[in-house]
Amino acid sequence: MDTDCIKIFAPATVANVACGFDVIGLAIDAPGDEIILRKTDTPGIVIKAIHGADLPLDPLLNVCGVAAQHFLKKLDQPDAGVEMEIFKNIAPGSGIGSSAASSAGAAVGLNELFGRPFDNKQLIRFAMEGERLASGAAHADNVAPAIMGGFTLVRSYQPLDITALHTPAALWVTVIHPQIEVKTSDARAILKQKVLMTDAIKQWGNVAALVAGLYQEDYGLISRSLEDVIVEPVRAILIPAFHELKIKCKEAGALGGGISGSGPSVFMLSRGEIIARQVRDVMNEVYAPLGVDYNIYVSPISTQGSRVIPM
Amino acid sequence: MDTDCIKIFAPATVANVACGFDVIGLAIDAPGDEIILRKTDTPGIVIKAIHGADLPLDPLLNVCGVAAQHFLKKLDQPDAGVEMEIFKNIAPGSGIGSSAASSAGAAVGLNELFGRPFDNKQLIRFAMEGERLASGAAHADNVAPAIMGGFTLVRSYQPLDITALHTPAALWVTVIHPQIEVKTSDARAILKQKVLMTDAIKQWGNVAALVAGLYQEDYGLISRSLEDVIVEPVRAILIPAFHELKIKCKEAGALGGGISGSGPSVFMLSRGEIIARQVRDVMNEVYAPLGVDYNIYVSPISTQGSRVIPM
Repeated sequence: MDTDCIKIFAPATVANVACGFDVIGLAIDAPGDEIILRKTDTPGIVIKAIHGADLPLDPLLNVCGVAAQHFLKKLDQPDAGVEMEIFKNIAPGSGIGSSAASSAGAAVGLNELFGRPFDNKQLIRFAMEGERLASGAAHADNVAPAIMGGFTLVRSYQPLDITALHTPAALWVTVIHPQIEVKTSDARAILKQKVLMTDAIKQWGNVAALVAGLYQEDYGLISRSLEDVIVEPVRAILIPAFHELKIKCKEAGALGGGISGSGPSVFMLSRGEIIARQVRDVMNEVYAPLGVDYNIYVSPISTQGSRVIPM
Repeated sequence: MDTDCIKIFAPATVANVACGFDVIGLAIDAPGDEIILRKTDTPGIVIKAIHGADLPLDPLLNVCGVAAQHFLKKLDQPDAGVEMEIFKNIAPGSGIGSSAASSAGAAVGLNELFGRPFDNKQLIRFAMEGERLASGAAHADNVAPAIMGGFTLVRSYQPLDITALHTPAALWVTVIHPQIEVKTSDARAILKQKVLMTDAIKQWGNVAALVAGLYQEDYGLISRSLEDVIVEPVRAILIPAFHELKIKCKEAGALGGGISGSGPSVFMLSRGEIIARQVRDVMNEVYAPLGVDYNIYVSPISTQGSRVIPM
């Protein structure tokens, strides 16, 4: 096997998992970006091609390039060079961690190419620089699950403190991506700077219960705690038919869900594949008459994160 | 054994466990109130004596009496009667669940006397009525651990949703009770009605991490997450030398802690008895020069809750 050339799969992710706004994310098994990385004799980074999206090849303007720069800077091997070919399967702006997948995939890919010099936490730091380029802020809530897999918790940025949470095997995710534009900056701007103490308490009661539900594999508790009383009520107006979608998905057996990242995608968690597919059918029923293009993904939660796959 | 007469031990509890304000509580092994309960031929409730505190014998004005009334009403045996003798070992107003212990002990005691007709959730409801009498609000954050033991989470009141969290065996608690008065109503009144979104996010990141830390028995994570950025900064002024106490306890090895309930007690969690006793020594050092009377308790976390003990 030519270990100087590898292919990486980097999963889509859901950030802002309901009550876990800004702190809890999860990785899904599909879709995901793919990146072919090749060691080169020429120092530096070349992005050879990008398939599936119109994104800059300039490494300074590309999230893979930026993550790779930070990797190579820390690696400190002046003659190290890498060439990347990127296959974008996650639509930019979809709210399921498109830039995070590419950033994470580049960081994990370089780590594999160069003999795994760095741990996950360091790889997350590199990938966060890709996020800084994409959104202006070095968020970790998508790159953490894109690298570690499963449910992740970002407790703190100063210092960076990230924990892999237990992920019950039977949890499946159904995601609908309505093809409308929701700018992250707009989604941020409509949030209130202050929240009611009573709402905040409700939210952290739910977050605590969600984490307990994950560890106990208590699907009833997970379901009851998938409630966001702070951000969803403000952002729901950005998503066509959000409330109808959520109500009908839960009627179809979904445990619960909410807006993925800052939208426009909406995710629903279910216990098992059968219900997750019923939830997809309901999403189709709600969205088909709306005249909005959309994609739906049904996937287990990926406990693996970004990884080498066969060429 | 005369099962018509039993003795109950009801543990002290810490509510508002740092970032878990209003939702996470824990039971300690000592001190605790004791209640002797006896079935009587005369229907109704008699409180025969109260030792250790000046509290009303009238069952309508006593938290044990109120919990017992609600128990008997639900039991619906018109000729049921009970007599109680209460030994208050937890000082009223100490902030370690004095009224909750008595309410919980009465509810659990009656349940034992009458053949365990009710589950923990129902017992918590009865005990919450005692809390309503004591503080004007039917809180569950002390009565839940006083009944269930260990760490508990009150996710919601409408409907009541309470979860027992995993409790690492090596966790010990050191509590200092400065003998000053902090009225719960005053401690409530100084809280802000609105909080910064950024602080709220920090708080629920910490709560999620605390719960994950408990399940993973990750003492480092527990320590890092024992941080309250919302309530403690406001209430710390109510407790003499709070900041010095906290800093020195952590220097002595405590994982972290905060104000117990609405004060004036302060609790610190430690890994193991030895450190918990070192923390006690440091509390003594800080408080001895202050001219404030105080008690200090060192105890493992009680995973048992209120229970029958030998007469």
